[in-house]
Amino acid sequence: MLRTGVLGYSGYSGAELLDLLQKHPFVEPVLLSHRKADESAADKRPVVCGQSPPALINLPWSPSVVSENNIDVVFTATPPEVSMEVAPQVLQQGARAIDLSGAFRLNAEQYRRWYGSEHEHPELLKEAVYGLPELHREKIRTACLVANPGCYSTAAICALWPLLKQEWVDRAAGIICDAKSGVSGAGKKPSPKTHFVQVTENFSAYSILTHRHVPEVLNNAGMEEREFSFAAHLLPIERGIMATNYLRLKRPVTLDEVRAVYENAYRGSRFIRLYPATSTPELRMVNRTNYCDIHCSLGSEGTRLVVISCIDNLVKGAAGQALQNLNVMFGFDEAAGLL
Amino acid sequence: MLRTGVLGYSGYSGAELLDLLQKHPFVEPVLLSHRKADESAADKRPVVCGQSPPALINLPWSPSVVSENNIDVVFTATPPEVSMEVAPQVLQQGARAIDLSGAFRLNAEQYRRWYGSEHEHPELLKEAVYGLPELHREKIRTACLVANPGCYSTAAICALWPLLKQEWVDRAAGIICDAKSGVSGAGKKPSPKTHFVQVTENFSAYSILTHRHVPEVLNNAGMEEREFSFAAHLLPIERGIMATNYLRLKRPVTLDEVRAVYENAYRGSRFIRLYPATSTPELRMVNRTNYCDIHCSLGSEGTRLVVISCIDNLVKGAAGQALQNLNVMFGFDEAAGLL
Amino acid sequence: MLRTGVLGYSGYSGAELLDLLQKHPFVEPVLLSHRKADESAADKRPVVCGQSPPALINLPWSPSVVSENNIDVVFTATPPEVSMEVAPQVLQQGARAIDLSGAFRLNAEQYRRWYGSEHEHPELLKEAVYGLPELHREKIRTACLVANPGCYSTAAICALWPLLKQEWVDRAAGIICDAKSGVSGAGKKPSPKTHFVQVTENFSAYSILTHRHVPEVLNNAGMEEREFSFAAHLLPIERGIMATNYLRLKRPVTLDEVRAVYENAYRGSRFIRLYPATSTPELRMVNRTNYCDIHCSLGSEGTRLVVISCIDNLVKGAAGQALQNLNVMFGFDEAAGLL
Amino acid sequence: MLRTGVLGYSGYSGAELLDLLQKHPFVEPVLLSHRKADESAADKRPVVCGQSPPALINLPWSPSVVSENNIDVVFTATPPEVSMEVAPQVLQQGARAIDLSGAFRLNAEQYRRWYGSEHEHPELLKEAVYGLPELHREKIRTACLVANPGCYSTAAICALWPLLKQEWVDRAAGIICDAKSGVSGAGKKPSPKTHFVQVTENFSAYSILTHRHVPEVLNNAGMEEREFSFAAHLLPIERGIMATNYLRLKRPVTLDEVRAVYENAYRGSRFIRLYPATSTPELRMVNRTNYCDIHCSLGSEGTRLVVISCIDNLVKGAAGQALQNLNVMFGFDEAAGLL
Repeated sequence: MLRTGVLGYSGYSGAELLDLLQKHPFVEPVLLSHRKADESAADKRPVVCGQSPPALINLPWSPSVVSENNIDVVFTATPPEVSMEVAPQVLQQGARAIDLSGAFRLNAEQYRRWYGSEHEHPELLKEAVYGLPELHREKIRTACLVANPGCYSTAAICALWPLLKQEWVDRAAGIICDAKSGVSGAGKKPSPKTHFVQVTENFSAYSILTHRHVPEVLNNAGMEEREFSFAAHLLPIERGIMATNYLRLKRPVTLDEVRAVYENAYRGSRFIRLYPATSTPELRMVNRTNYCDIHCSLGSEGTRLVVISCIDNLVKGAAGQALQNLNVMFGFDEAAGLL
Repeated sequence: MLRTGVLGYSGYSGAELLDLLQKHPFVEPVLLSHRKADESAADKRPVVCGQSPPALINLPWSPSVVSENNIDVVFTATPPEVSMEVAPQVLQQGARAIDLSGAFRLNAEQYRRWYGSEHEHPELLKEAVYGLPELHREKIRTACLVANPGCYSTAAICALWPLLKQEWVDRAAGIICDAKSGVSGAGKKPSPKTHFVQVTENFSAYSILTHRHVPEVLNNAGMEEREFSFAAHLLPIERGIMATNYLRLKRPVTLDEVRAVYENAYRGSRFIRLYPATSTPELRMVNRTNYCDIHCSLGSEGTRLVVISCIDNLVKGAAGQALQNLNVMFGFDEAAGLL
Repeated sequence: MLRTGVLGYSGYSGAELLDLLQKHPFVEPVLLSHRKADESAADKRPVVCGQSPPALINLPWSPSVVSENNIDVVFTATPPEVSMEVAPQVLQQGARAIDLSGAFRLNAEQYRRWYGSEHEHPELLKEAVYGLPELHREKIRTACLVANPGCYSTAAICALWPLLKQEWVDRAAGIICDAKSGVSGAGKKPSPKTHFVQVTENFSAYSILTHRHVPEVLNNAGMEEREFSFAAHLLPIERGIMATNYLRLKRPVTLDEVRAVYENAYRGSRFIRLYPATSTPELRMVNRTNYCDIHCSLGSEGTRLVVISCIDNLVKGAAGQALQNLNVMFGFDEAAGLL
Repeated sequence: MLRTGVLGYSGYSGAELLDLLQKHPFVEPVLLSHRKADESAADKRPVVCGQSPPALINLPWSPSVVSENNIDVVFTATPPEVSMEVAPQVLQQGARAIDLSGAFRLNAEQYRRWYGSEHEHPELLKEAVYGLPELHREKIRTACLVANPGCYSTAAICALWPLLKQEWVDRAAGIICDAKSGVSGAGKKPSPKTHFVQVTENFSAYSILTHRHVPEVLNNAGMEEREFSFAAHLLPIERGIMATNYLRLKRPVTLDEVRAVYENAYRGSRFIRLYPATSTPELRMVNRTNYCDIHCSLGSEGTRLVVISCIDNLVKGAAGQALQNLNVMFGFDEAAGLL
């Protein structure tokens, strides 16, 4: 069994990850508590009569906790500041790290601009591998530090990169990604923006052209910032991201040509699914799964292209993809614990 | 008091219209029933002790009901087939008509293509005025037949037409309208698509590049079909439309220049509101009002423009706009019964 | 115009009240700010082109602000501690006060037990009138201090007091009130319990047999604590309370007899409506209104009685009832600004 | 592998059952189509590139299909009329049957009264075993025909039967069950009552004292109809039932005494969980599981008792319980495929 530490297990992504790990056939999860363990929640859960609730090992974080406890890999589902501090310590103890924050996804200059502070370990940014297995599977296998992609970025990149390699896309016309996310994407911390009364029967746009996930998309799908317009929107649902992407083509193509691009790009990628041409893309099909579903539509003249991608922001957009990365890194079946 | 008939008062738009009419200071609503009146709903409502519920006049539709009952104007909140049959009869009896369906919004050729059947009164299509007061206020004043705009069309046109008159918009790059609507836009008839279990915690895209409201937008905002990409999405809420529009500019402009375009276009238009630059557009601000709220964002290089418009699909997108048209047609304060 | 101060206008009840006051024909609202005014929200609202947004007078609270500004009546939509401090100051300046908190609804002993602290102005508790106009209309007319009822209490009392005067109710068998409320009842302050992700697709029970609104119900419906079982539940909706009340009768009665009890009790009460026997009670009929709707069902043997009451917790359960009280206190039409 | 037929696999319960069966380690599901198979839905699903979607065997229903295909057991997730016709045919072919409808839960007289028609196979009603394993585990082991309980009934019975065996419950005072269900309980067929716009931000009561699930509760918890008051309510969520039950005790007891009743009744029952005394019962803990969670509260005087039970109406209230019954009938681990 692979001893797998989880730091930040009480947030949405961390809790989702813990659920997945407990069902994984080859993994033994170990809780790591940066601050003191929050045991109150467990105490309020209903219990089968006559049974004690199962308890995971819960270790306080210390700079030597990883090696002392023979932990092989650590997930950090923590804010970027914490990840930046903790990940190097994990690596120094000889373990591998998968970070779910934005701490290791960009280069130092991008980090400074989009996160508004200096990166504290720029030397690790070259070493870190961007953990989107559909793009970087080979590099992930041997990576010590994997930067798990942002949720919006996962949806946008999966929809865009195969197309952007085609010469028939008119980049000068601009690529549009209109993205909508469920509220769990905003994190567990209560705020006026996530109050039920504010969100229900409402819909809002935010971070228009300024979202932090943009530079990841540029780096991995292969675009310049001036070519790409991204707007985020808040859906009154718990989970799920739909990204509706609009591209303009230099010459008319057929829908079959477009679909062939995806079939080629994702042959062997078991978590990418393609919608039949006449169907209706919806979040319900991906929620609580690690799939990224893709749907293509083409204008009658063959040059207006709409590509829709759907993921569960907590699974393919966070915890599921992190586990997929672990599977690749340790040579397990890529779908172990994920189907 | 203006005697005002309502045909189709039991659908969502018709019921919303009836509510508005009953609060209007200068209007006396009269129900017109194409089929026999549905009285069961009224019988199930709670009643103030000792009071009879107020009853509106309810007349069965007949080809002479309008003139016999001195009705001045008739709203038809009916399917296009019914509107096509009834509206000419209203006009023949000397009354004016405001139609909430798609029957009179297009030319005959467009109607054939987008609605899939031949128009039965093509002669009326030239006479009909497209009832978007912010564009066609003067023509509406004297119109006998007003074609009330589609809900999506209202949101898209209000956001786009002022900009599309500017030479700095790069039309060749394409104009994108990513639109999201609440479920009431799909009508009251139960279907698998509007079942609560299908809609809640879900989000879907539909009519991608093929929505019937597209030709109205082309006609009124001034675009060719190949320039315009429109996708509709279903929000898990009762009401509200947000249209996120993306344009590319030939030369960099400032956000102030963009805002000035709207301020000029909508000076005196009391139902168009502009968001401050740093605020967050949301449906909650327009729902249950006749406002169309507009929000502009500009990329740092000044050429990527995002314009968001928000309306309540049942008010500014249907019943409220219909009443606004009535106000214009009969010389009332344009906002009477709407603030 | 009645100069009407509002302290606590940024919470849900206060904001709802302000909306109502601005539409009232005889009232001029004045904002009172206990702490410094929160102007940021107003700055983010969309604005009609060329118009300045309307601004209300906003005065910082001081012990003499009421008399210096000729304010006739003050609403305190504040926590009980603040209301307890402010209300006496309002009265000392010769104005009347309507308090929306729980500060003045109970006697001193009850306050100590249910609110967990000593009341600071027990002398006012005898003077305060419980502001449920359907029960205490005459006393409210001349009251200087009105204690606006709790939301759950309003629903429970309106359903129960007329019946509890009947000798055929078997009090020994116990009276049950199973109450369900929308999330706005929990207040505007963000907390884990009101986070959208916690509430959506969920339903929970809380304050089972221990809710603070219980003693108000006992006092006003006429029961002993041991006779009454009350449980509160959280609905995944913005607003609305349904209270399903169960009573057992000593002898069989008919549904007509039960309905006659309500018709007699509420003759002339314009905000109480009775459902027809065969209809389905639902929150949608009362939301955004000041109505309390009541529905009665009787077991086939005539002794099991179920009485359901529905209100909007922010209107009849808070702001609307507060305004109804103002109307009674100042001799306006009881429904002014409320229909 | 146990060959397991499913008739009625396209409704909510049937689809949920099919999902569970496909994960069960010892079961091979076979689709049975009473009418022609609905293949359109499958054709619209997204597909992993290069993979054919997995297909289950789908057989048209015929009176000999069960024996000809060596099917061991058939689930009928069909309306009672269909179940009444099909179940005898299953039994005649030597297979066992688990019926999810109300066809075999009552005696012939009860069926006539509550379902409004004569039962067509009254001889089977004595043979049928009520499939609540926590009560009737031994009888289920050898049953040929299991009547899977109603969803509301499951919640009510699990909360009530252990208590109703105690002499300290005052039955004469009446037992109350105030039950709330998600919309999937109303079935998949679109209707005005399940339209999203009708349900969202709403809450309604229905079948007050007249719900069809009542006689099942009376039979299995041990009550007379005049002792029991049951009201159903519709929650604006997809799934989940909470039943809040109120009992009055003849003499004061302690909460520990109450909890001991449940611990004894459910020792060895792995799907019944008891909440700690200070916690908050909520549907989120049971949804998508086969658990029934129970929470007890007691008034300070020790005689007012509130017992809350929570289930997922589609799992413990339908498909999960049906599978639990199969496990018991065929000697599998009772939790196989359910944890």
